[in-house]
Amino acid sequence: MKRLITFCIISFGMLTASMAAEKQPTDYVNPFIGTTNFGTTNPGAVCPNGMMSVVPFNVMGSEDNKYDKDARWWSTPYEYHNCFFTGYSHVNLSGVGCPELGSLLLMPTTGELSVDYKEYGSRYKDEQASPGYYSNFLTRYNVKTEVTATPRTGVARFTFPAGQSHVLLNLGEGLTNESGAFLRRTGECEFEGMKLLGTFCYNPQAVFPIYFVMRVNKQPAASGYWKKQRPMTGVEAEWDPDNGRYKLYTRYQKELAGDDIGAYLTFDTEEGEQVEVQMGVSFVSMENARLNLDTEQQGKNFGQVLEEARRRWNDDLSRILVEGGTEEQKTVFYTALYHTLIHPNILQDVNGEYPAMESDKILTTQGDRYTVFSLWDTYRNVHQLLTLVYPERQLQMVRSMLDMYREHGWLPKWELYGRETLTMEGDPSIPVIVDTWLKGLRDFDIELAYEAMCKGATLPGAENLLRPDNDDYVSLGYVPLREQYDNSVSHALEYYIADNALSRIAAALGKKEDARLFHERSLGYKHYYCKEYGTFRPILPNGEFYAPFDPRQGENFEPNPGFHEGCAWNYTFYVPHDVKGLARLMGGKKPFVDKLQRVFDEGLYDPANEPDIAYAHLFSYFKGEEWRTQKELHRLLQKYFKNAPDGIPGNDDTGTMSAWAIFNMMGFYPDCPGEPAYTLSTPVFDKVTIKLDPKYWGRDQLVIETERPSAESLYIREMELGGKKLSRYRITHEELVQSGKLRFSLR
Amino acid sequence: MKRLITFCIISFGMLTASMAAEKQPTDYVNPFIGTTNFGTTNPGAVCPNGMMSVVPFNVMGSEDNKYDKDARWWSTPYEYHNCFFTGYSHVNLSGVGCPELGSLLLMPTTGELSVDYKEYGSRYKDEQASPGYYSNFLTRYNVKTEVTATPRTGVARFTFPAGQSHVLLNLGEGLTNESGAFLRRTGECEFEGMKLLGTFCYNPQAVFPIYFVMRVNKQPAASGYWKKQRPMTGVEAEWDPDNGRYKLYTRYQKELAGDDIGAYLTFDTEEGEQVEVQMGVSFVSMENARLNLDTEQQGKNFGQVLEEARRRWNDDLSRILVEGGTEEQKTVFYTALYHTLIHPNILQDVNGEYPAMESDKILTTQGDRYTVFSLWDTYRNVHQLLTLVYPERQLQMVRSMLDMYREHGWLPKWELYGRETLTMEGDPSIPVIVDTWLKGLRDFDIELAYEAMCKGATLPGAENLLRPDNDDYVSLGYVPLREQYDNSVSHALEYYIADNALSRIAAALGKKEDARLFHERSLGYKHYYCKEYGTFRPILPNGEFYAPFDPRQGENFEPNPGFHEGCAWNYTFYVPHDVKGLARLMGGKKPFVDKLQRVFDEGLYDPANEPDIAYAHLFSYFKGEEWRTQKELHRLLQKYFKNAPDGIPGNDDTGTMSAWAIFNMMGFYPDCPGEPAYTLSTPVFDKVTIKLDPKYWGRDQLVIETERPSAESLYIREMELGGKKLSRYRITHEELVQSGKLRFSLR
Repeated sequence: MKRLITFCIISFGMLTASMAAEKQPTDYVNPFIGTTNFGTTNPGAVCPNGMMSVVPFNVMGSEDNKYDKDARWWSTPYEYHNCFFTGYSHVNLSGVGCPELGSLLLMPTTGELSVDYKEYGSRYKDEQASPGYYSNFLTRYNVKTEVTATPRTGVARFTFPAGQSHVLLNLGEGLTNESGAFLRRTGECEFEGMKLLGTFCYNPQAVFPIYFVMRVNKQPAASGYWKKQRPMTGVEAEWDPDNGRYKLYTRYQKELAGDDIGAYLTFDTEEGEQVEVQMGVSFVSMENARLNLDTEQQGKNFGQVLEEARRRWNDDLSRILVEGGTEEQKTVFYTALYHTLIHPNILQDVNGEYPAMESDKILTTQGDRYTVFSLWDTYRNVHQLLTLVYPERQLQMVRSMLDMYREHGWLPKWELYGRETLTMEGDPSIPVIVDTWLKGLRDFDIELAYEAMCKGATLPGAENLLRPDNDDYVSLGYVPLREQYDNSVSHALEYYIADNALSRIAAALGKKEDARLFHERSLGYKHYYCKEYGTFRPILPNGEFYAPFDPRQGENFEPNPGFHEGCAWNYTFYVPHDVKGLARLMGGKKPFVDKLQRVFDEGLYDPANEPDIAYAHLFSYFKGEEWRTQKELHRLLQKYFKNAPDGIPGNDDTGTMSAWAIFNMMGFYPDCPGEPAYTLSTPVFDKVTIKLDPKYWGRDQLVIETERPSAESLYIREMELGGKKLSRYRITHEELVQSGKLRFSLR
Repeated sequence: MKRLITFCIISFGMLTASMAAEKQPTDYVNPFIGTTNFGTTNPGAVCPNGMMSVVPFNVMGSEDNKYDKDARWWSTPYEYHNCFFTGYSHVNLSGVGCPELGSLLLMPTTGELSVDYKEYGSRYKDEQASPGYYSNFLTRYNVKTEVTATPRTGVARFTFPAGQSHVLLNLGEGLTNESGAFLRRTGECEFEGMKLLGTFCYNPQAVFPIYFVMRVNKQPAASGYWKKQRPMTGVEAEWDPDNGRYKLYTRYQKELAGDDIGAYLTFDTEEGEQVEVQMGVSFVSMENARLNLDTEQQGKNFGQVLEEARRRWNDDLSRILVEGGTEEQKTVFYTALYHTLIHPNILQDVNGEYPAMESDKILTTQGDRYTVFSLWDTYRNVHQLLTLVYPERQLQMVRSMLDMYREHGWLPKWELYGRETLTMEGDPSIPVIVDTWLKGLRDFDIELAYEAMCKGATLPGAENLLRPDNDDYVSLGYVPLREQYDNSVSHALEYYIADNALSRIAAALGKKEDARLFHERSLGYKHYYCKEYGTFRPILPNGEFYAPFDPRQGENFEPNPGFHEGCAWNYTFYVPHDVKGLARLMGGKKPFVDKLQRVFDEGLYDPANEPDIAYAHLFSYFKGEEWRTQKELHRLLQKYFKNAPDGIPGNDDTGTMSAWAIFNMMGFYPDCPGEPAYTLSTPVFDKVTIKLDPKYWGRDQLVIETERPSAESLYIREMELGGKKLSRYRITHEELVQSGKLRFSLR
């Protein structure tokens, strides 16, 4: 009886607390934000930085869907405007641009058994989503579906009508382009198995397995497998009734393997009867998947798991409390914070085991082992946000990155579940590590980190996984265009930023010679500046500029010589470590500011991709031009970040767009990755309270107050930092956290 | 050093023995007999009653092959006239009519790696085969390949040229119609995995897994997997270089699963370098596959495994020694004996574990657990041969059959690796068990056996797995034709024979009432006799004969109402338990003998299938007509059993055709299954010595001597049994074994 009593008390406590309290941060989160307009977030259930997510999968099986994963480039299991639901996918990516994961599809149906997703899919209504929870109602089957999650496991609750009901586990389909699965019944109510995942962004060798254990809480009346049979011809075809079709295995119960397999469980259900389906996963083994499930869900029902997920989210989101601003702004803000806390996520099982980077080894970690490092995106602001608000996690992420170096010999570029997918370019670990260390999170092996960073920066191209064109870069100071779409300028611009960060850490570590060398390299961007166009421009191997040249080419992701996912305008101002130097190159402050303003005025700014996202902050490097930063950021936030499914301008890029909104809504932004500083701008809230960890920052909170004469007040009139008047619009990280309070007065 | 010395002594001992000795029985075996003309035997390496066979697979991948498994009905991994070799299949069936097993294809290649069997297959020359050994030379690759086997494991020895050499394990193809496999690297030189098999004779639910462990004795320079990728369309297809092709996994080393997968190992080889590849299998688990491999091959090289396999064969084949006769006749005889010792084969692992019948359970057996019971075939003569010459095995097979009843509730009909495939018809376990017991092999639970036999004989059709039409049979005394191709007459004829046997055992057990009942039922064949045609004829549900009727319809396996795989003539004389009664029905001795003679003279006898194979013996039931038996058997043996690839008239049917030849070449044949008696005919050898087990037969040998005035002497002039003159042409089993000597004088 003790357990029951305890539970009642806890529930009662939470109930009264929530009735008495204001709206909680979780209450502001709208998981549907970003679920269309290629935001590629999803409304599924997930815990903060959790391995598991349980996501409604609605991107295949019917022409009624507006977006189909097989008919076009598609990278997310869910689209807000689609209508044909084929189950819940387990373990998914949020806000990415390539298809991956999104498998182990769990679907409830009723009536006659069908195992073909094109047939068994259903329309739905009554979608609801909140942190750790998603629900819908399948109109075809009259089944209410609900899902929630722990860090490594998921659980679904299906409320069935009276009659024959089914639970299907489809291992043949999913978002990943890899196929192949293994399945074994391990008890009346349990299956275990493995599914192959990988080839993210079409890297054919970036392959890895996911292991799972699935359990239902009701004994099925019948169960079995299915497998799509390979097409046969001739006599074979005549004799095999399952030729080319989904074959049902009604008696076979041992191991099943194949490209397109699944398991079904059939129940006799009463009206309103609920069946819960638990799913534990691991990237180590089926045993660990079971251990994860046993550890995280044993003795808990759906409601208890949900309650715990909500509590985790509320704890995390409450690290920043915002006051003032509209309900819409609070929703945008907390949803953005929610989106930044999805990736990187933990990789290790409850026993600490995880698959080593690019290796067959299983290692054991002490702290969390993080995975899903979309670093070309996140080095710009996500890690800076984590550093400030979740420093223990950021530190552990850096340790994970160093462990990857220990295991694989390279810092990550785009790491996905132990595979280096080499997606996008540059050397983005460097600014992350440098930024973290320079801000004072130093409990990691900086000498090893420095060795690792120098390896990428200095090794000849042929041996260099991260900088394959390093020979050109080192000898010429830039990367010439050697193939039409080699993204050479984009590569070099990333190297400059990384080398600037490397120069700073070298200086901090007393390595003066290195500091000088990398600083010099970081200024090689000047080679690319073409006076004729006033932009960067690719350089041919003979040293001449590439021609014909159109600085607008590359808009809307069209292929563009020298530049990756953008036009020359999207890249030309991307020298955050030498803004003044770039301005000199352009003729000084006025031509620089005029041209930058023209980028915004003429629609040359792309809010949906990373290279130019810190453009608006550059005005603030020039005295008297800071209002432009404030004005453009206000406009961009208003226009592109909304409480609506299309409320993120493009791929959220594992939280990068969201982190952009969070910083700018709070009034400061880390526009030069690797430099521990922020550019200040107008907060949208009257008061922001960031809970700080005194262990790292010496004090327990940072308050940002804004005096706003009217709701329309947009520009900063006056600022105070720690009670003292502040006349600069760029402050260091140390200044900010030591001040305890930043105060804006608007006009 | 001890082991080495011991081995040298043994080798020397065997060498001198073989130099000194006559040709051994193994030397007479030609495994190519039956490898064309649909004999469906193969020349692969196998041990007596071994689970493992390693067979050259040459029935796919090239239009140069005369017979292709995918282009027509095909049931054997090897065809003598084919030319395109795609590897060795592990675990195969010998002499069956449906495709099954024949997977885990192991192939050596050289040069550039190809994993597509249509590309990597090779022509070959220099085929050699002997019991436990097969070899060829791959002309495309200049690789000599050799294989041998232990009871549960195989080993291949590839002699490579200098350069880059490969070993491929293909789990995507094979003879089975099931697909799906699982593969995992477990060490530098070892893989383990699982492959789905089953659907024998297109029974879609008769599915089971084979587990394996593969090891090479040389560290590979490189290795990986392949998987044929599912075809993609649209954007996916554009981006995936492996779309619809065999994708190589060069870095991934963990679990792989899919429909069409495999593993490759690449070696740098010197000229003439040999690489050995061991393969252990189990039908229980991968762990047991490893245990089997470790137990049966540890510390042994190819030569030692081969020597042991040869010894096993020689020991078994030497249980019958023949003298006189031609070299060709000895070859036919010993090859036939070899073919009868392939199935049933052991199922249990070295630790005694095996998969229970139609169950997920793993059980442990004390003695051997046998599998592959093609009982509609083998009940006629194979088990009678085993009873006489290998009684310990026959007894254990009956125990296996009873264990199947314990596990599954039914005696087997056509059991295949724990699955009841329900192929062909009747209740064929009954005559096998009865025959065995009546002959004196009684160390099994006869009460349980009787219960099991009565269950099939008496349960209503709806609940009766073995006799689904039992309601008609019991109430009418025959099975009417209710569907055009329901094989109703064939069903009933089998039931009559089974019930005759059941009646005999009932009598022996003192169950008089049962004996009377089943005896009566066994005579129901009379219903089918149609005076108009003088043959059996299907009966309609209204009691009238089926029309239109053509007693020749059904020749060459064409579909035929009422009869399975044959015409009315092939079935009409198939009442071995009441030959005299059938003769009375036909008008007495002369009409019977005349009509039976006409069957032979007019080509109505089918030597390639079972129903009529004991027709020739029926003449001997009539005094003065025995010469016809002797003449026809002489003619049939001469015509259909040869030392040539087409030396078996049709499917060997897991040794049934071979057992027919063996008995008839020795001069006696058990023409009424379930009746412990033989019909005598002219032996082809001058002396046959059968080693008897005194434990069962009271004496240690049975000698059959034949005095042959000339090589052309064909007819029996005089016979002596145990030194006493014998004037009957049918003798009981007891008379035969107790006599110690049977002597024929020919004229």
